[in-house]
Amino acid sequence: MPKSLLHKLGDNIRQHRLAKGLSQEKLAELTGLHRTYVGSVERGERNISLLNLARIATALDASLSDLVSGVEQ
Amino acid sequence: MPKSLLHKLGDNIRQHRLAKGLSQEKLAELTGLHRTYVGSVERGERNISLLNLARIATALDASLSDLVSGVEQ
Repeated sequence: MPKSLLHKLGDNIRQHRLAKGLSQEKLAELTGLHRTYVGSVERGERNISLLNLARIATALDASLSDLVSGVEQ
Repeated sequence: MPKSLLHKLGDNIRQHRLAKGLSQEKLAELTGLHRTYVGSVERGERNISLLNLARIATALDASLSDLVSGVEQ
């Protein structure tokens, strides 16, 4: 079964987070988002808004383009 | 005053829409979104969700990366 766009986005975020050596808790702290919310985004369970995604991108030193790259395929 | 991320996103969407020769009404029809909603997104008034943005990208034959390109600057 192909992964949904939101699942692929979550995978991208997780990869960027792990590459920075950050825990979900630390990413939550850096973004001001709740830890359980960050977890649900990484699991593809949230139709995240662009401003929250931008907060995550900033905390990960990534661009929005980086985080959404390839999620449509 | 610098344009906000959502304003820049709206500008990107408008540019792609006009490059395709589409009216807001036609883009609304293609996406299944309401015409007034599409207009408010183009004016940067909506913190759009990723799935709605993906619908717009698909209708414009653009990628999500295209639409969010440069919006952080």
